[in-house]
Amino acid sequence: MTSEFSFHLLGRDRAARTGEIRMPRGTIRTPAFMPVGTAATVKGMYPEQVRQLGADVVLGNTYHLMLRPGAERVARLGGLHRFMNWPHPILTDSGGFQVMSLANLRKLTEEGVTFRSHIDGSKHVLSPERSVEIQNLLGSDIVMQLDECVSLPCEDKVAEKAMRLSLRWAERCKTAFGTQPGRALFGIVQGGIVPRLRVESARELAAMDLKGYAIGGLAVGEPQADMLATIEVVEPHLPQEKPRYLMGVGTPDDIVQAVCRGVDMFDCVMPTRAGRHGQIFTRFGRMNLKNARHAEDPRPIDPESSCPAANGYSRAYLHHLVKAEEMLGKMLLTCVNLAYYQELMAGLRAAIAEGRLADFVVQTREGWERGDPA
Amino acid sequence: MTSEFSFHLLGRDRAARTGEIRMPRGTIRTPAFMPVGTAATVKGMYPEQVRQLGADVVLGNTYHLMLRPGAERVARLGGLHRFMNWPHPILTDSGGFQVMSLANLRKLTEEGVTFRSHIDGSKHVLSPERSVEIQNLLGSDIVMQLDECVSLPCEDKVAEKAMRLSLRWAERCKTAFGTQPGRALFGIVQGGIVPRLRVESARELAAMDLKGYAIGGLAVGEPQADMLATIEVVEPHLPQEKPRYLMGVGTPDDIVQAVCRGVDMFDCVMPTRAGRHGQIFTRFGRMNLKNARHAEDPRPIDPESSCPAANGYSRAYLHHLVKAEEMLGKMLLTCVNLAYYQELMAGLRAAIAEGRLADFVVQTREGWERGDPA
Repeated sequence: MTSEFSFHLLGRDRAARTGEIRMPRGTIRTPAFMPVGTAATVKGMYPEQVRQLGADVVLGNTYHLMLRPGAERVARLGGLHRFMNWPHPILTDSGGFQVMSLANLRKLTEEGVTFRSHIDGSKHVLSPERSVEIQNLLGSDIVMQLDECVSLPCEDKVAEKAMRLSLRWAERCKTAFGTQPGRALFGIVQGGIVPRLRVESARELAAMDLKGYAIGGLAVGEPQADMLATIEVVEPHLPQEKPRYLMGVGTPDDIVQAVCRGVDMFDCVMPTRAGRHGQIFTRFGRMNLKNARHAEDPRPIDPESSCPAANGYSRAYLHHLVKAEEMLGKMLLTCVNLAYYQELMAGLRAAIAEGRLADFVVQTREGWERGDPA
Repeated sequence: MTSEFSFHLLGRDRAARTGEIRMPRGTIRTPAFMPVGTAATVKGMYPEQVRQLGADVVLGNTYHLMLRPGAERVARLGGLHRFMNWPHPILTDSGGFQVMSLANLRKLTEEGVTFRSHIDGSKHVLSPERSVEIQNLLGSDIVMQLDECVSLPCEDKVAEKAMRLSLRWAERCKTAFGTQPGRALFGIVQGGIVPRLRVESARELAAMDLKGYAIGGLAVGEPQADMLATIEVVEPHLPQEKPRYLMGVGTPDDIVQAVCRGVDMFDCVMPTRAGRHGQIFTRFGRMNLKNARHAEDPRPIDPESSCPAANGYSRAYLHHLVKAEEMLGKMLLTCVNLAYYQELMAGLRAAIAEGRLADFVVQTREGWERGDPA
């Protein structure tokens, strides 16, 4: 085991990369998908299942955890890893995105953002320094800078102001984080879908020599083409030897497209949230288990999957569980989705390492389009 | 494996018994606790977990299954065992109790009961013959007769009328069930808390030579003393060489007391339902994980438990999951409770076999009363 955070590129295929992020708590194989464990749990999953399905890292949400159970409490209990029985790497976000989408009575200033909890109305302040402090208390391995994320579409002026504020906050986060060799602080590129703003943001952050860079403010409702174009604008300005993380993305196709454009890390609630609502992602594309056509189908989701939820239960049973709103339905379909996402990432990593990414992408998309063999 | 349903008494301690119910799908060690799998799933549990925690048999609810997904559909899919991935024994109730507690516009006649589904308002008929037919379609190993269960307290006349109807329905169920050597039809003793009615019911059913006998109509709100007195009245009139099943019971203490009075089988939603609401049963008595005193307690529920949910997560984390209404909290606490119930049954079986039941009961109750070591 290493005592320092480091990133190692092991292979490339055009803009796509495969590698390893090494740190004291373990290695993240990239491209990596990080299941979202908002409130110190990947919803409906035992931590050892999340691991078995292939996750090297999970994401925790600073906003939720600071409100409940509270960062100081988690620290007194030995940190987030021990608290949630996940001894492997954890990335925490800064809390900024959820403050903007969930909290009440938000007020944003140069100093930071004040808000009231959506749970109990209590008042809180989140500044760059406090965000880093909370993430230090949680003990996450990868810490995200506090940023301001604007909703799209927005005026260029608004995107520019938020991007510049995010740069100043990045500096303050860097100072607050200090030198911690075993952990990493990532900066976040902002700038809406305005190329010159994105380039400026990426260049300024690159100059700060942070350990990794995220692309934020995407997957907030804009067309996929805008998202991909923005990645293409940003990518050349991010250092090759640092990991790149596309925040909050996305569908399997979003991920495949972004990997082809040089992104290394992803997180998204989609596989877990969709699973709780009867929607699954498979080699054959999407399926909705609520659909009546599954009611008497004795076949498993995918007999070739290594996931017991996908190969060991009939679609008829899963349909029944979804209709009856049984917990086991949500549990099994969340497994199915996380298994498929991790299987997709493993496929991408192998294809990049072997220089056959283009073929892999064509085959993968053909599988989705061909649909489920009847 | 045997091809016939049979019961073997292996040990006694005063009125208490331990034995094995053997049948083609497996052996039920008695005294046995049957987790409730209402809608073809023990809520929040993977079937293999239910098994690992020590269950030899689960209970399915005919009322729920006939409405959704439907008995004919389950039969077309290969039966309930295959449907729910539980290859071990299953007992199904008759549906009568849930019709009375859940369905709308119930109308009871000599023929049976008509009602409307609480799910979609559709009209259904449940007669003794249809109840057996549904349970045959589900393919359960132990089939319960349709009975009329009155709510307590009630007038003797009402209890008497329901008991007599239940006897006539037992005869009709016996005829409908016919000869099925690998499966069993159990009769149900009724008669409220009126000793002469209970005795008459038990004697008449015993004369029918069914493969097992349940005591029904208890644990419906009456004091524990009334329940235990009724068991004591009934027990001498039940054949020693047949298993006895106390329906819908109960707390750990109810079970211990009933075992001491000669009961062999139990089912109850208590461990699963309580678990979903943050309540647990342990060697140290009951605990409510919602209670603020657990908020920073780093200890597991019970380090000596063999159940990972009880020995591997801090109380602080479980408290957090319960407060945040996370699925994992319900999943883990359901495990904790089913593990304790099965551990208690194993303890009772061993104590009876070794002739030390009285000591076991004293020690068990002392543990509950001593409470949690601080």
